[in-house]
Amino acid sequence: MKDTFAELESLLRNVSYWIKKRGRDALSSVNITLPQFQVLQLVYFGEALNIKQLTRLTGLAASTISEMVDRLVELGYITKTQNAVDRRQVVLKSTRQGSAIIRRVIRQRVRSIQSIARDMEPGSAGYLAVVLREFVELCNRAERLAKLPGS
Amino acid sequence: MKDTFAELESLLRNVSYWIKKRGRDALSSVNITLPQFQVLQLVYFGEALNIKQLTRLTGLAASTISEMVDRLVELGYITKTQNAVDRRQVVLKSTRQGSAIIRRVIRQRVRSIQSIARDMEPGSAGYLAVVLREFVELCNRAERLAKLPGS
Repeated sequence: MKDTFAELESLLRNVSYWIKKRGRDALSSVNITLPQFQVLQLVYFGEALNIKQLTRLTGLAASTISEMVDRLVELGYITKTQNAVDRRQVVLKSTRQGSAIIRRVIRQRVRSIQSIARDMEPGSAGYLAVVLREFVELCNRAERLAKLPGS
Repeated sequence: MKDTFAELESLLRNVSYWIKKRGRDALSSVNITLPQFQVLQLVYFGEALNIKQLTRLTGLAASTISEMVDRLVELGYITKTQNAVDRRQVVLKSTRQGSAIIRRVIRQRVRSIQSIARDMEPGSAGYLAVVLREFVELCNRAERLAKLPGS
């Protein structure tokens, strides 16, 4: 059974690497570098609201992140606003234009999956969705349990 | 049917994000930053053999990559050797110690998958492997076709 898990790890790593590469093809016509896109993505999905969180999540130096954020603001992809509670704090938000880039990449990812899945055995894509849904639900449950006080 | 693909994209993105985060927990006890780990990973899997390829794949500046590579060499995780054909070219390789870090992260990823999959319906994990294997084979075929001359 251990082998199934090791195989699942390898398969999921391969699938997501392939989809990620295809998605990034959509960036070639957009004025954004890959690290800038990664920062935009973290802001768009609400994973990072400020420089400090971006620094922690990317492992890049605060000065590098600051420069990247300023560039993304210049490009019109994100905005810096003051935190309503603590006005010294800056909150980052994806603009309509920034969100459009994320959606463009996701559309490209969906198209790539579609191009593969239509060649699968009948029913395979549907069943894959069913099993992955079960997997994601269990991941979310594990995440919630890990956040409980005392755990 | 379009909805199945959009859902698959979202599910696969969630699953791989969750596994990636769990895997990175294994880095907390290792002397390596996240961007350094990403470079090590590209070298380990043979995706990048030199600074130029690392620059292209990461989108980071050549100077940033050079510094990171030097640091990884200092830490004993990668080596720089001369290319046998063109001696001006440097070839990067993961050391035994560097490879151990990658394997440690992969083991952590496998354990995380195991912790989720053991709570799945009986047979689900095995079936997930079967369907993903089909998916990966089709991805590889698409990759090979894209590399054919004239395509």
